[in-house]
Amino acid sequence: MAVAFGAEVYRQRCERAVAAAREAGLAALVLTPGPDLAYLSGYTPPADTERLTALALAADAAPTLVVPTLERPAAELAPAALTFADFTDDVDPYRLLAGLLPATGRLGISDSAWSLHLLGLQRAVPELRWAGLSEALPMLRAVKEPDELARLAAAGAGADATYEQILRVRFAGRREVDVAADLAAGLREHGHERVDFTIVASGPNGASPHHEPTDRVIGEGDTVVLDFGGLRDGYGSDTTRTVHVGEPSAEVRDVHEVVRAAQQAAFEAVAPGVPCEHLDAVARTVITDAGYGEFFIHRTGHGIGMTTHEPPYVVPGEKQPLVPGMCFSIEPGIYLPGRFGVRIEDIVTVTGSGGRRFNDSSHALAVVH
Amino acid sequence: MAVAFGAEVYRQRCERAVAAAREAGLAALVLTPGPDLAYLSGYTPPADTERLTALALAADAAPTLVVPTLERPAAELAPAALTFADFTDDVDPYRLLAGLLPATGRLGISDSAWSLHLLGLQRAVPELRWAGLSEALPMLRAVKEPDELARLAAAGAGADATYEQILRVRFAGRREVDVAADLAAGLREHGHERVDFTIVASGPNGASPHHEPTDRVIGEGDTVVLDFGGLRDGYGSDTTRTVHVGEPSAEVRDVHEVVRAAQQAAFEAVAPGVPCEHLDAVARTVITDAGYGEFFIHRTGHGIGMTTHEPPYVVPGEKQPLVPGMCFSIEPGIYLPGRFGVRIEDIVTVTGSGGRRFNDSSHALAVVH
Repeated sequence: MAVAFGAEVYRQRCERAVAAAREAGLAALVLTPGPDLAYLSGYTPPADTERLTALALAADAAPTLVVPTLERPAAELAPAALTFADFTDDVDPYRLLAGLLPATGRLGISDSAWSLHLLGLQRAVPELRWAGLSEALPMLRAVKEPDELARLAAAGAGADATYEQILRVRFAGRREVDVAADLAAGLREHGHERVDFTIVASGPNGASPHHEPTDRVIGEGDTVVLDFGGLRDGYGSDTTRTVHVGEPSAEVRDVHEVVRAAQQAAFEAVAPGVPCEHLDAVARTVITDAGYGEFFIHRTGHGIGMTTHEPPYVVPGEKQPLVPGMCFSIEPGIYLPGRFGVRIEDIVTVTGSGGRRFNDSSHALAVVH
Repeated sequence: MAVAFGAEVYRQRCERAVAAAREAGLAALVLTPGPDLAYLSGYTPPADTERLTALALAADAAPTLVVPTLERPAAELAPAALTFADFTDDVDPYRLLAGLLPATGRLGISDSAWSLHLLGLQRAVPELRWAGLSEALPMLRAVKEPDELARLAAAGAGADATYEQILRVRFAGRREVDVAADLAAGLREHGHERVDFTIVASGPNGASPHHEPTDRVIGEGDTVVLDFGGLRDGYGSDTTRTVHVGEPSAEVRDVHEVVRAAQQAAFEAVAPGVPCEHLDAVARTVITDAGYGEFFIHRTGHGIGMTTHEPPYVVPGEKQPLVPGMCFSIEPGIYLPGRFGVRIEDIVTVTGSGGRRFNDSSHALAVVH
């Protein structure tokens, strides 16, 4: 389990969230289990279920957690100073929560709040209008505090150490799932309490960006995309390197170099005030100019913090200017269907003057055996 | 990973779902990652994220999966015969999904669908009305097929074997988290691919029904509530036994006996046609008559299948009649704040004439050391 912050940190975050909500025209916030609730209260229930757990955050009211009676003892151990409103299984929790919210206006709700719960709230108070938090208040968790930056840096270092280790294992003759297990063990060894993904996409499987490791036996001549990460002390790592089993062909070297140049160009474009979409455009231009534009089939990156995907998104159309303390991935790729794929990904944070990588392992096309 | 069923199973389930939806007045269904999508297609994406993945199920149309382009190759490996509609990161996926749905009427959506996605759909087609599936179509996955019953029985047997093992480990002088780790190892040893919870609630911690194991050192004279489960071949186990370290007092024996009698009475009340709430009333009456009514602070049970909590719920107000093939927990408890707790839980299925337990380990108050 991740180490919690002190009560004062949560108090300040709640205060900032209420102020930001007011500025965004939101009358209140409803935060449900997951990163929003953990960020603002330090509380994570045993599971996210059909029983409503939600923090009501409104101006001039104490942060109040609506919680099932049977989980109230667990919730009372949360580090934040909270007020509680608990309910038993024979009670409508939506009326209870509605009583803690304004009767009209626009409210923000956690992206991952269950639809069952949103529908219950919409039924309880039809007058309210709702907006997903990543759209209505995208900056809520986007600018990291110094303690958060330190945790993200430590997670990145753990991922880098895992990559250095994996270069020394055997690839040829072993299955993707075996190398994936090595990656997971490495992340744990290097301090991660949770492994979220260990993509090992060899040969033609590399053309599937979110490939799940299979029993495919890796062979000489395969490129292998390795994309792995998880949580270390509650904060995420997410890095990708592409390696090659034996000596690569000129074409593989060429594609890899295009992706490397795109990643580097986007990294060098990081600076306060630059719109997110500009980084995407920079990476995409390098790849398009090299003739591979149609094979770069996803956005250039995503924010990272207590989750692996969160604002800001590095995607066409995202005008959000970069702010010092923001953290996100830069991960262009080229995917050639039926043949192979290449992706290079680092986590980057915005500093006062540019960007700083949390992943420092080499971008060179490593030859493995 | 759980073994998938054949394509024909998914075809039949989709057909049944569409027919049931029509009968329930639903014009179409939207199934998102989790048990609904897995049940109807066999597909589980690498993660449930801000990128929409959703199966559109409507009469007279092929089941169509809206999926991010970068995950389409993974989705195409799903065992069900699906049609695909994929989108890149610069496209509004809600318009794409809306194009596969009726333009008016009431639609069902998975309980755990992200609010972000429901709000996107509500924005794309304001005319549609939405209902959570556990409310609008609670029976969708409630009556298990023979293959599903076999998997639930195997999961229950694995949990029973885990309990038999735990009776032989040392309790006194070890921490709750240590015994919890033993339970997790036991579930894995007995075939579970995923451990979902391992509650070890000793002494006063037993009064918190969803207690998370702590560093508390278990001592002589403690009661210990053990509630553990996970997934075996994709289907859930969930069982609770309460043990005692050393010889129990007359009071502990008495409370335990009340809970045992309540659990047994509710089990004996299981029969086709009996309303779910009746089982709750039967268990609650036994506990109330013994003078402990105010200390039984949760419902008597919940359905189980590909998830640990699903319809039917054994709760006051639930009129749903029992149907052969339904599976749920019966788990009354008594929680004495600051002192101790007792809970006994079995998974039960409805047969043609009564109930059958998937957990057969002894209900007697076991003395451990």
